[in-house]
Amino acid sequence: MAGDPIGELVALFARLPGIGERTATRLAFFVLESPPELASGLGEALSKLHDRVKRCRTCGNFGADELCNICRDPRRDASTVCVVARVPDLVAIERSGAFRGRYHVLHGLLAPLDGIHPENLPIAELRERVEREGVRELVVATPLTVEGEATALYLADVFGDSGVEVTRIASGMPHGGELEFTDQVTLGRALAGRKKV
Amino acid sequence: MAGDPIGELVALFARLPGIGERTATRLAFFVLESPPELASGLGEALSKLHDRVKRCRTCGNFGADELCNICRDPRRDASTVCVVARVPDLVAIERSGAFRGRYHVLHGLLAPLDGIHPENLPIAELRERVEREGVRELVVATPLTVEGEATALYLADVFGDSGVEVTRIASGMPHGGELEFTDQVTLGRALAGRKKV
Repeated sequence: MAGDPIGELVALFARLPGIGERTATRLAFFVLESPPELASGLGEALSKLHDRVKRCRTCGNFGADELCNICRDPRRDASTVCVVARVPDLVAIERSGAFRGRYHVLHGLLAPLDGIHPENLPIAELRERVEREGVRELVVATPLTVEGEATALYLADVFGDSGVEVTRIASGMPHGGELEFTDQVTLGRALAGRKKV
Repeated sequence: MAGDPIGELVALFARLPGIGERTATRLAFFVLESPPELASGLGEALSKLHDRVKRCRTCGNFGADELCNICRDPRRDASTVCVVARVPDLVAIERSGAFRGRYHVLHGLLAPLDGIHPENLPIAELRERVEREGVRELVVATPLTVEGEATALYLADVFGDSGVEVTRIASGMPHGGELEFTDQVTLGRALAGRKKV
């Protein structure tokens, strides 16, 4: 006997989000029945992932070097910094094409009950960066959740007297949203934030 | 620059069935933000998969040894052999707990238009096995598709005069099935295959 290689792979696949045991089994057999290059390619990409991926020393974004692609791009506006909780949020904003400034990734949100306090997030680094790089606006794009809002309020407070403008992404109806199916908090915010057409 | 390790991983994840680019991105970031043991464990399991997994020399099932767990189990009835197209089908039957015989995995189905003829499937091996092991019944559990049915008919024909009984899994309404939403072929078969209560 040499263990159960398929069962082990299934158990590992099932640890990924949204993948139950049934799907994990399907994936394992798919890989097994595919040319071995798929398994070896995925295996190598995963094995080397944490060695190859670095956190940008300026903004915390993931990349292959000390400085990420965005911080290295001279066309990006260094005076506007968008603060996000996680790199996937940065990726989503980049995909929208609506932001040409730079980022600061917190890799978390304030959550005092879970032991995540301001000193556990790279906020001192952000303050230093604001001074060093002459940042004029911080666009806080943390999620519209309790923790995201608390973090936004904390940042507004911390940077309140530093001369930098702290803004928050708009809250309202999502694109294509039906009023009938929209929760009351969102509707309330959409109404409160109404603008002249 | 040292390539784009996250992008490469996303592209590889997206080659798996049912995983689009959005899900692949989510998986990649999940792995990246998880303890490195998940990535290295998955990486190793995938890299070694094709070396560790062997096809059973008797039945074609996957396993860690020359002989699979089922062929090695003396409690399994060697006189009844269930013929399946793929190992996942075998796994599904095992999960049902309804079969105590052994298996023969074809790793494919007859598909002349795709160039898959009887000699491309382990049918000669099955014939040899039937003689050697004194098999009395072949339960053909290929899928209820055109190719699965054609393969079943072919097997019934090949083994017709060998003294072995060739049976086919029943076709009818699935468990919990609603007549209203059942296709006409299934309904027709369910009616034709009706049994006395």
